[in-house]
Amino acid sequence: MNQHETYVRQSIELAISAARKGNHPFGALLVHEDKVIMTAENTVIADNNSTRHAELNLIVKSERAFPPEVLRECTLYTSTAPCLMCTAVIWNAGITRIIYSVSYESLSRLISGGQNYISLDQIYRLLGTEVEFVGPVLEMEGLEAYRLWPGR
Amino acid sequence: MNQHETYVRQSIELAISAARKGNHPFGALLVHEDKVIMTAENTVIADNNSTRHAELNLIVKSERAFPPEVLRECTLYTSTAPCLMCTAVIWNAGITRIIYSVSYESLSRLISGGQNYISLDQIYRLLGTEVEFVGPVLEMEGLEAYRLWPGR
Repeated sequence: MNQHETYVRQSIELAISAARKGNHPFGALLVHEDKVIMTAENTVIADNNSTRHAELNLIVKSERAFPPEVLRECTLYTSTAPCLMCTAVIWNAGITRIIYSVSYESLSRLISGGQNYISLDQIYRLLGTEVEFVGPVLEMEGLEAYRLWPGR
Repeated sequence: MNQHETYVRQSIELAISAARKGNHPFGALLVHEDKVIMTAENTVIADNNSTRHAELNLIVKSERAFPPEVLRECTLYTSTAPCLMCTAVIWNAGITRIIYSVSYESLSRLISGGQNYISLDQIYRLLGTEVEFVGPVLEMEGLEAYRLWPGR
C-alpha cells in the first residue's frame, strides 16, 4: 500500500467515526514531513452548524496550532474531495497538495442527481494558484462510509 | 435615501462595531419582507478563527433561527462583497439577492495589491444559479470603515 493510500484510509476512518457520532461521514487530516499533525471530522449535526465540514474544522484547528509556513508545506488528505467553501478555506491557508478518496463528482451524483458543481482544481486555476490534486484514491472504500450517513 | 442605502448603511455600522471590538471591519444582515431578521459581525479575532466572517456568521445564526424557505426569500446586505468561502455558504443557503457596499475588487486592491480573486457573480454563473448582485452602494462610506481596521 503506498503512502497516499495509508493516509486516505485514515481519512476514511475519520469519516466513519464522524458518522458513528451522528454527523455526516467526512474526515480529513494534515500531513507534514510524513507525520500526521492534525485530524478532523465533520461536526455539522453535533454543532448544529452547516459549515462545520471536516476540512474547515481541520484548517481552523491547524491555524491555531501551527504557523502559516508549516501549513503551506502540508499535504491535506480527505475522505471526499472538498466542497467550494472548504476549497476557499484550504486555498486561503496556502495549502496546494490535496489527496482525496471520493471525487466531488461522485458525491454530487449521489446526493443531488449530479447538479452543477465546481471542482477544486477549477477554483485554483481561476485564482492563478498551482495545485497538486490527486484522486480518487480507494474510492470504493470512501463510498462505503456513506452507508453510515445518518438519516440518508 | 433608497432602501438599499438604508440597509447597506446598517451593514457598515455593523462593520464599524466589529472593528471597535478588535475584529475585522465587516458586517452583514438579512432582510425578509422589508424587515431585518438577523445581523452579524466579523468575529475572526475574538474567536481566533479565520473563517468567522460576517456573512458566514450570519448564515449559521439564520439557519438556526429560520426555515430554509424563509432564507431563500431573503436579501443579504453586506459592507463588502463576499469572499469565495462566504459566497459558497450564501449559495448553499439558497440566497440569490446580495447587495454590497465595497466591491471585492476594491478590497483586493487595498489588502493584496490586486491579486487574483473570483467574484460572487462568476461563481453563481459557474453553478448555474441566477443571482441579483448589486453594488457598490455607498462605497466611500464602506471604505471609511476600513480606517478602523485593527492592526492595519
